[in-house]
Amino acid sequence: MELSRTERTRHRRLRDQGRSDRAALIEVLRAGFVCHLGVVVDETPMVVPTVYGFDDDFLYFHGSVASRSLAGGQTVCVTVTHVDGLVLARSVFEHGVNYRSAMVYGAPRVLSGAGKLAALRVLTEHAAPGQWDYARRPSAKELAATVIFALSLDEASVKIAEGPPGDGDGPDAALGLWAGVVPLETVRRPPSPDPALPAGIGVPAHIAALAREDASIH
Amino acid sequence: MELSRTERTRHRRLRDQGRSDRAALIEVLRAGFVCHLGVVVDETPMVVPTVYGFDDDFLYFHGSVASRSLAGGQTVCVTVTHVDGLVLARSVFEHGVNYRSAMVYGAPRVLSGAGKLAALRVLTEHAAPGQWDYARRPSAKELAATVIFALSLDEASVKIAEGPPGDGDGPDAALGLWAGVVPLETVRRPPSPDPALPAGIGVPAHIAALAREDASIH
Repeated sequence: MELSRTERTRHRRLRDQGRSDRAALIEVLRAGFVCHLGVVVDETPMVVPTVYGFDDDFLYFHGSVASRSLAGGQTVCVTVTHVDGLVLARSVFEHGVNYRSAMVYGAPRVLSGAGKLAALRVLTEHAAPGQWDYARRPSAKELAATVIFALSLDEASVKIAEGPPGDGDGPDAALGLWAGVVPLETVRRPPSPDPALPAGIGVPAHIAALAREDASIH
Repeated sequence: MELSRTERTRHRRLRDQGRSDRAALIEVLRAGFVCHLGVVVDETPMVVPTVYGFDDDFLYFHGSVASRSLAGGQTVCVTVTHVDGLVLARSVFEHGVNYRSAMVYGAPRVLSGAGKLAALRVLTEHAAPGQWDYARRPSAKELAATVIFALSLDEASVKIAEGPPGDGDGPDAALGLWAGVVPLETVRRPPSPDPALPAGIGVPAHIAALAREDASIH
């Protein structure tokens, strides 16, 4: 991902590292709970945000309007991206973005029965640990109205760009311009109670902990 | 986008509002600078994060590996999403996400000449206002190595979900469980100078202002 650099920029290989190892994939997936699901509908791509969770073997995502087209074993692309910083170089050309991104390809499977319930638990606990045991679990009717897909993590790639701009050792360094990174971070704010909540129902410990947790979902 | 709700949930229509007005689109586009670009490559969807900017008529995005397949006037889908909060309801089924998302469909055009330079300026200034005048502008060679696409904003939709969970007035309210929203926000941190920077080059005013600006890119 670039602001104005190209595939051929010499610093690119140093700053952007394609990663194929499992640990990097898990790290990227762990750092968020919203992915962008890409499907093909009538030969046109459609990219929709949706909630995900994962375990050792699968990424689970919630059915959406886009997934109506997924009945026939169609291949999808699920992308999870964290934007970590804006890279300001001496030249416009070397500007860029620090980020971590994972792409997972495959033909997702619609879950049912116990597998569906287990996946819904994974989804819920990934976004809000402790909530599965705290909130009312789905009724049979609600479960029937929920569509959950499982996508194998077998075909996945991770790309990470980090660090300062790449033109600190080039001729542009002589321009005497400031260069560096403006870091970006996604943080949780204190829980905001539903106005419909009666007095006396405090924030449960697992939600308070979630909001406090290093103040960041990264 | 749901954690466990479906299209048919009765509260959905109240919480999630499809917006078609231009102002909502501009507001969503203004709040970020990384989009997810969806293309079809060999009949398979590919979703890649890339940097964007926009003006009254077009969204501009930076060429990437995915855009190699865009020579033939293929339709793409560009999605911009801001995750604003995790919605914790009384039931797992009513859990959800507060978000703002824009989708733009169209066949992007590769820019050249003055249009390309102007678009690169828009891209740069959108991510870092003031930087176009501060940094060294692209040389002819760098410009030739840069691919910028223009996508009409004519076919766009916006979806916004906000507010508390929807089950505060339903039977689950009697469960006596806490419910509410954990807000999420993307914030900028203080600029981190390139370690290669010589002493005495301070952070320029426009970058300091960017990092300070209400501490949020939302």
